[in-house]
Amino acid sequence: MIDFWFDFGSPYAYLAGEQIDALAAAHGRTVRWRPFLLFAVLRELELPAPMAHPARRDYLLLDIERSARVLGLPYRQPTRFPVITPLPARLFFTLAQTDAAAAARFAREALRAAFAQDQPLDDTRFVGELAARHGGGEASALLAAAEAEPARAALRQSVADAVAQRVFGSPFTVCDGEPFFGADRLPQLAARLSSAERP
Amino acid sequence: MIDFWFDFGSPYAYLAGEQIDALAAAHGRTVRWRPFLLFAVLRELELPAPMAHPARRDYLLLDIERSARVLGLPYRQPTRFPVITPLPARLFFTLAQTDAAAAARFAREALRAAFAQDQPLDDTRFVGELAARHGGGEASALLAAAEAEPARAALRQSVADAVAQRVFGSPFTVCDGEPFFGADRLPQLAARLSSAERP
Repeated sequence: MIDFWFDFGSPYAYLAGEQIDALAAAHGRTVRWRPFLLFAVLRELELPAPMAHPARRDYLLLDIERSARVLGLPYRQPTRFPVITPLPARLFFTLAQTDAAAAARFAREALRAAFAQDQPLDDTRFVGELAARHGGGEASALLAAAEAEPARAALRQSVADAVAQRVFGSPFTVCDGEPFFGADRLPQLAARLSSAERP
Repeated sequence: MIDFWFDFGSPYAYLAGEQIDALAAAHGRTVRWRPFLLFAVLRELELPAPMAHPARRDYLLLDIERSARVLGLPYRQPTRFPVITPLPARLFFTLAQTDAAAAARFAREALRAAFAQDQPLDDTRFVGELAARHGGGEASALLAAAEAEPARAALRQSVADAVAQRVFGSPFTVCDGEPFFGADRLPQLAARLSSAERP
């Protein structure tokens, strides 16, 4: 099992999200997309946010653009940043109740919208329509479900699971129990998957 | 100019230190090795130490061993960790007063001793002899010089420069003004050096 923990507001999750499914598929594996709220987990673990400090923030903004360029992925720094992410996370869990693959498609497209097209993930209408396009159904019904208790409970549980597993960053990929923090660790994950296939 | 900022107690500096000179030389560039004291810079910048938090510490110890394995470099977690590093840093500046290349050789060997051979960099006799071997001269004279004011002033200045340039981690490589934080950014530095050569 490959768990792909991510926050919808994480630029590095976008960079990894563009690669993780193909990487897993190349080794006959599947990915479980697991959205959580990074700020909530960091608060619980008593860790600072990655961009809280100006020196780190300035560096990370530079590093994100450079990393996207090296990977050949389009990137646009969102106008509204940080991105507010409980709504897309709850829409994800709403879709996942009936179709995990649709939820993963929605997640991938939402990250792309946020970080390649500067679309606002905190805009109810925009994310509602995005969810409807990938999950089927009416945007209004999905948005209503995303406000209801089951979706809220699913997100709370996800945050609690992330805290318990000490998922202290985004993206955070766990493959057969081994943690890989950051988009920059996907090559090491690939090496791990390759060596696991050898007899 | 390529500035290679490092702390003698940084495992990732060891991993990068094994590669940085060859990488630079492949592009006709030279490296200025710049030891500093990470804890002092982080304190000044009001940032936590990378291993201060148990969740991050456990992950980093795993990641360091995995990164060394992927790079094909020997690694042994030091028995005494964290490593106390003012002494090797002051020995470096003592050697650098007369021979920058000897100081860089000493630095590379000291990192290798600490992280591939579990040798104690806080042991006066061990680092004194290592410095003598790479810089020439008597260990006792080098150790005496490392305790004297010029070496202390050089280290203080280095820490002040690191703070001013917001060198918030180790290793931290600055190439023509562009910062690359971490051993894992050397491939991006290589890409930068390659593209700089194109007409």
